Amino acid sequence: MNKIEHIGIAVKDLKTSNVLFEKLFGEAHYKIESVESEGVKTSFFKVGNNKIELLEATNNKSPIAKFIERKGEGIHHIAFDVDDIKSEIIRLEKEGFIVLNKEPKKGADNKLVVFLHPKSTKGVLVELCQDIKD
Amino acid sequence: MNKIEHIGIAVKDLKTSNVLFEKLFGEAHYKIESVESEGVKTSFFKVGNNKIELLEATNNKSPIAKFIERKGEGIHHIAFDVDDIKSEIIRLEKEGFIVLNKEPKKGADNKLVVFLHPKSTKGVLVELCQDIKD
Repeated sequence: MNKIEHIGIAVKDLKTSNVLFEKLFGEAHYKIESVESEGVKTSFFKVGNNKIELLEATNNKSPIAKFIERKGEGIHHIAFDVDDIKSEIIRLEKEGFIVLNKEPKKGADNKLVVFLHPKSTKGVLVELCQDIKD
Repeated sequence: MNKIEHIGIAVKDLKTSNVLFEKLFGEAHYKIESVESEGVKTSFFKVGNNKIELLEATNNKSPIAKFIERKGEGIHHIAFDVDDIKSEIIRLEKEGFIVLNKEPKKGADNKLVVFLHPKSTKGVLVELCQDIKD
């Protein structure tokens, strides 16, 4: 794993949260992107070589809506950058981690992504992501 | 803010968690450190230019013990690296963030640290940290 690619934070309202996090970082978000398959609208901030992704649910069935219902707003997941997501999936399954989608799927920010079940990672929702090369 | 310095993860048992996260990252922790004033024992992993800090409570009154009691194991805080923690405290207070300790305190890993109340940051416990220069 190369670095923390981003931290995902579940928020109720993207607009007001963008203002707040701009104050925190002293710099505005650099893009807004919707991932319809996940029922989320996201915004991205750069902090050095890392990113912060704010996530707002776009419907009641979105994982983000369910997360906020159970736990309130807050840190939702950590994403790690990897070079070869498919070989990482094989390696981590062998190590006993529960991979939520065996086939990497298209996530925000032009990435292939996979999630590990928090049950296998001490309550931490871990995402692996690999850049999609054009 | 220069980068994500580390992510803090609250765990019940440091020993078994060290084994698990070593499997996740494919690399062992590089140090163990206790911060008695906070009632925690920590271990650190490197992931590229970022770190993961596992935190185990050393007594019942530790913030980590209380966190696990309320929420279970999982992500506890995000720490951002800053050059000048005192000027950041002044800036963030002006912006309306609630600073938990106005005087930076000595944290793990040779840092001066300050925390922002999650109430003012959408449920996210934010730590700022600055290297202590010898």
